[in-house]
Amino acid sequence: MSSPTGIARPPAPPYYAVIFTSQRTPGDRGYDAMAERMVALGSARDGFLGLESARGADGLGITVSYWRDEAAIAAWKRDSEHQQAQRGGRQAWYADYEVRVAKVERAYGKST
Amino acid sequence: MSSPTGIARPPAPPYYAVIFTSQRTPGDRGYDAMAERMVALGSARDGFLGLESARGADGLGITVSYWRDEAAIAAWKRDSEHQQAQRGGRQAWYADYEVRVAKVERAYGKST
Repeated sequence: MSSPTGIARPPAPPYYAVIFTSQRTPGDRGYDAMAERMVALGSARDGFLGLESARGADGLGITVSYWRDEAAIAAWKRDSEHQQAQRGGRQAWYADYEVRVAKVERAYGKST
Repeated sequence: MSSPTGIARPPAPPYYAVIFTSQRTPGDRGYDAMAERMVALGSARDGFLGLESARGADGLGITVSYWRDEAAIAAWKRDSEHQQAQRGGRQAWYADYEVRVAKVERAYGKST
């Protein structure tokens, strides 16, 4: 996935982060279009607070999405198009991945 | 920072994640050597559980380090060489960044 938003700026914690770390398989095979669609769909969900994404030349990528609460995360995970993308991820796009759901307790930036 | 470890494999949650999202300034100016040193130093700390890092061609990078508890995170933040690197980051290497400290509540992977 490309970097659609730079550094996310959710409101002050607490909020939730879903850390998705993945190793891509070679070739596109519909990946870029799917990723773009998932960003558009996910970003429109109630409770979505922001998204950060980076993938290096070695194919390792980290996407962190931020959410108001666990209910919003669970609802997005159940979305039917997202479920189809999850199946594609397991079957074709990702050699390996790990998902971590975490509660952000504090945050600070360069100027804070 | 390059991807020193691929996908991290900490023990089962709960544990902590430090999500460091940054936008690099142009040019190296000692950055790569510092990053390599920080990976070596941080990885050797008590309570360190793993590291994932990716930076795209646009300069946006995400590094997630995993820790046993908040005390381990706080101790590493206070490390004198790390503090020097943090100053370098604010002054030279990063146009912008955000740090988030989060408690990982659950995790699952491709095969789990």
